Amino acid sequence: MERHFHEELNQVKQKTLRMGSLVEDMVERAVASLVDRDSHLAEETIAFDTKVDNLEVEIDGDCLRLLALHQPAAGDLRFITTAMKIISDLERMADQAVNISQRAIELNEEPQLKPYIDIPIMSQISQKMLRDSLDAFVRKDVGLAREVIETDNKVDALKNQVFRELLTFMMEDPRTIPRAIRLLLVSRHLERIADHATNIAELVVFLVEGRNIRHATQQGV
Amino acid sequence: MERHFHEELNQVKQKTLRMGSLVEDMVERAVASLVDRDSHLAEETIAFDTKVDNLEVEIDGDCLRLLALHQPAAGDLRFITTAMKIISDLERMADQAVNISQRAIELNEEPQLKPYIDIPIMSQISQKMLRDSLDAFVRKDVGLAREVIETDNKVDALKNQVFRELLTFMMEDPRTIPRAIRLLLVSRHLERIADHATNIAELVVFLVEGRNIRHATQQGV
Repeated sequence: MERHFHEELNQVKQKTLRMGSLVEDMVERAVASLVDRDSHLAEETIAFDTKVDNLEVEIDGDCLRLLALHQPAAGDLRFITTAMKIISDLERMADQAVNISQRAIELNEEPQLKPYIDIPIMSQISQKMLRDSLDAFVRKDVGLAREVIETDNKVDALKNQVFRELLTFMMEDPRTIPRAIRLLLVSRHLERIADHATNIAELVVFLVEGRNIRHATQQGV
Repeated sequence: MERHFHEELNQVKQKTLRMGSLVEDMVERAVASLVDRDSHLAEETIAFDTKVDNLEVEIDGDCLRLLALHQPAAGDLRFITTAMKIISDLERMADQAVNISQRAIELNEEPQLKPYIDIPIMSQISQKMLRDSLDAFVRKDVGLAREVIETDNKVDALKNQVFRELLTFMMEDPRTIPRAIRLLLVSRHLERIADHATNIAELVVFLVEGRNIRHATQQGV
């Protein structure tokens, strides 16, 4: 029974990591569909979302079963309920990748406004935050979780930089406004992906230290 | 013991409703601080966020204790883990109210771009969605949950209407762009509040029917 429990708990970890890498893939493809102007890839990325949704339901079910059949001790109990929250964040990150893909399809129909430089950087940083936050979770590594939380500032700074640059385009030529707004939204979607990674990292700190370090998302313009 | 469990479970319901009405209050005040150009109220609303954060930690602890001390049957177990997810959504709605308050402070420093008409309507609808989604949860009322999910379309339509209107301002006079973008963000923050209410309603349907009806958030421009 005890051994069985730890095997199942380990499966929850593995599945959560798998869900994480699916989501990371979606984010990478969504941004690639924008940068490479590949709307077919964007459509594929959107279709992929169902797999992530299904995996969330599966892991949620696994966790409920673990709670119902075994009576996990306080530490394992908190680990399982944290996993149930983390998969919600992962599912919403996938939704953001869908949103980016939708913006990409719209943007690919018009001439490219500018070379995309900061957006791929934001994406790479966010993907790393996602990966590190999940590694921090399965290893209960508070140091790594805190690094993720720190990194969120970089994404916010890039988002502000993208905003200022797009503002100059819009001010100089109002015909660029619809495209500039779509790019602005892409940067916001990426920022939200980084926010979700930060949420996961904060959950890890709470899991390990029992201290709530959650803070309101600062969305300065 | 059994009676004790149900009393404690009932307390979780009551506290979740209380947290919900605090969040609703924050949303109402945040939008009022914009409409009435009252930055002092905006500051107060931002400060209020800590109360919501603390209540989330408290309810989360109550739920963990319920899981650890009693061995709830499948139905109660799922109810408790659903509550733990719902309070995450509520906490993030409060973050959105903070974001709106920040935009209000910035906007109140400049002349008002236009009368605010659709934004207060979006806010009222979102607040009702929040209230109804929590009522649906404590009463396990799938019909009401489905109404909330339907209503999300109205908020999306209003968001698109706000966007089109702001676009005409920006196109006609580029000097309005920074203010128009901030108002655009306010409408997005409200849309996200409605999305969180929709998430809660979807969790209620899943809780009662065991069917996942979650869908990617459509964020058309």
